[in-house]
Amino acid sequence: MKAVLMYGAGDVRVEEVPDPSLQEPTDALVRVLRSCICGSDLWPYRSMPRSEQAQRMGHEFLGVIEDVGSDVSGLKVGDVVVAPFVWADNTCDFCSEGLQTSCRHGGMWARDGVDGGQGEAVRVPQAQGTLVKLPVGEDSDLLPSLLTLSDVLCTGHHCAVKAGAGPRTTVTVIGDGAVGLSAVLAAKRLGAERIVLMGRHKDRTDLGREFGATDVVVERGAEGIERVRELTGGDGTHTVLECVGLKEAIETAFGVVRDGGVVSRVGAPQYPDVPMDFGVFMRNVTLTGGVAPARAYIDELLPDVLDGKIQPGRVFDQTVTLDEVPGGYRAMAERRALKVMVQS
Amino acid sequence: MKAVLMYGAGDVRVEEVPDPSLQEPTDALVRVLRSCICGSDLWPYRSMPRSEQAQRMGHEFLGVIEDVGSDVSGLKVGDVVVAPFVWADNTCDFCSEGLQTSCRHGGMWARDGVDGGQGEAVRVPQAQGTLVKLPVGEDSDLLPSLLTLSDVLCTGHHCAVKAGAGPRTTVTVIGDGAVGLSAVLAAKRLGAERIVLMGRHKDRTDLGREFGATDVVVERGAEGIERVRELTGGDGTHTVLECVGLKEAIETAFGVVRDGGVVSRVGAPQYPDVPMDFGVFMRNVTLTGGVAPARAYIDELLPDVLDGKIQPGRVFDQTVTLDEVPGGYRAMAERRALKVMVQS
Repeated sequence: MKAVLMYGAGDVRVEEVPDPSLQEPTDALVRVLRSCICGSDLWPYRSMPRSEQAQRMGHEFLGVIEDVGSDVSGLKVGDVVVAPFVWADNTCDFCSEGLQTSCRHGGMWARDGVDGGQGEAVRVPQAQGTLVKLPVGEDSDLLPSLLTLSDVLCTGHHCAVKAGAGPRTTVTVIGDGAVGLSAVLAAKRLGAERIVLMGRHKDRTDLGREFGATDVVVERGAEGIERVRELTGGDGTHTVLECVGLKEAIETAFGVVRDGGVVSRVGAPQYPDVPMDFGVFMRNVTLTGGVAPARAYIDELLPDVLDGKIQPGRVFDQTVTLDEVPGGYRAMAERRALKVMVQS
Repeated sequence: MKAVLMYGAGDVRVEEVPDPSLQEPTDALVRVLRSCICGSDLWPYRSMPRSEQAQRMGHEFLGVIEDVGSDVSGLKVGDVVVAPFVWADNTCDFCSEGLQTSCRHGGMWARDGVDGGQGEAVRVPQAQGTLVKLPVGEDSDLLPSLLTLSDVLCTGHHCAVKAGAGPRTTVTVIGDGAVGLSAVLAAKRLGAERIVLMGRHKDRTDLGREFGATDVVVERGAEGIERVRELTGGDGTHTVLECVGLKEAIETAFGVVRDGGVVSRVGAPQYPDVPMDFGVFMRNVTLTGGVAPARAYIDELLPDVLDGKIQPGRVFDQTVTLDEVPGGYRAMAERRALKVMVQS
């Protein structure tokens, strides 16, 4: 089959790889209908050392079950399913607590002999725990929004939930990428009435407004902090959803959070330390968040996607075929695309 | 009156200062019965640059009201009262949320013209919001335990509460100082059944065991982390109460916390950055805590102190007169005393 391989920064290719097949009785085989390129795929796209040992790519996909192992129940050939961006047994103690990203028998896509989502098919380990059946057909118009359950919608939701965003909280969202916009959507869905979106790409912040942002701050750094403080009577917001992962973003987060408030981060941190010094201590600011256990949230979010109450699929502004994926990476890296969907 | 002044590292003196008197109608005047020396007083005791401009000291005290301003109700001359270690109006929005340390009209003892607790008397700003009446006489045997409501008991409690310590959580407490031991007491009081105390002063960890610690780990650094992990099946504990404030302690905290767990810190941080890198992010570890809004907790903790259910005053292992305070600082700095009470 064909799959996406990264050989180093800027070098993404679509090549033939071995066809996947069941290896364990807990596996399922999924033919991919839709996958996508993640903001986090851009980190290696910018920095991965060149290597003959190419890296399989992709951790967001939905598709059709083509085969199931003997230990998998509740799923059958022909089912349309979505996969969260980390696979997990969904039964261990961590999974039971809603932390499937720390599953004792789970792991990541596209490594250790497991396929990536950017390809024609995927062998899914721990299929019963990992996959969620979707009550739609292969040609559903909802596929783009359902695909966001794999990562960005759940990641934005995780960020908002961990922050405690709700009816009585004000929210700042840092970053107007697909995760930032999903965080706006999630905060709005959880009842937040005041949502300040920090971003400077007008097409994206316009979508952010449609998703629920009440204010947009285009300034960055000290100026951006000052602007958010002005909007909140000098105090900052109760919660800050940090959806970027750069040092400047987390610094901004501590600048715009209200005393006693919560900074929640889901942008994969590209920094080793967090500036939580004596001043932050005196203000009782909490830092939470982390990699989102998407599986924990799919059951809750799915109904709102199915009935069109939320339309998170709007973050996809470009669709490519599998062969066109290298161009999709370029488009996202050059910010010509917000988020690229791959139609297999 | 006499009060304690610090002129620089290692230079603490008891000298005459102006007698305090009411300045605002919201003030009260309190004659100090008991005060104490805080672990945080040792930071300037070790590092304060020498200065002619001496610094008043002390932020923990209880005493008897000698005068009240015209705008103060609910308090009268003769009442025995305890003061939390930050004064506050207890009515602003932050106070209403239980964050009196960020009060819009509050402040710190021993600075900006406000007396310190280590002295014969204190003018208390925002007295009605700050002071809590104690139903005991001046000669009560409970005074030491009641004095801990000023800071250490509430600080340990804040640490445990913010961490979410309770019946279903395992707890590591880092530090066997007065705050660490108070955190053990607080975690036990909140229902935690497994409490691992990290500390290496046997007399202190022995008291920790009496307060509720189920395990004591004397090792530090990587060895200490390994030991806590061994005790918890390799996972670490759900909550970690960091009661030291040094870089090594916060690093240890991230080493012993379970995935999805919470590090709560109340040791005033002597470091600018926290090591919350990509690995911590992938484990969904939260960092919370900060300076404790003691006032928010006194009403809840007071009954347990009054009926002897908890005896937090046992952290005081030395009592000095006001004139002997310089020796008290030395004893604490040299670890000959756990916590020194001052009897005026």
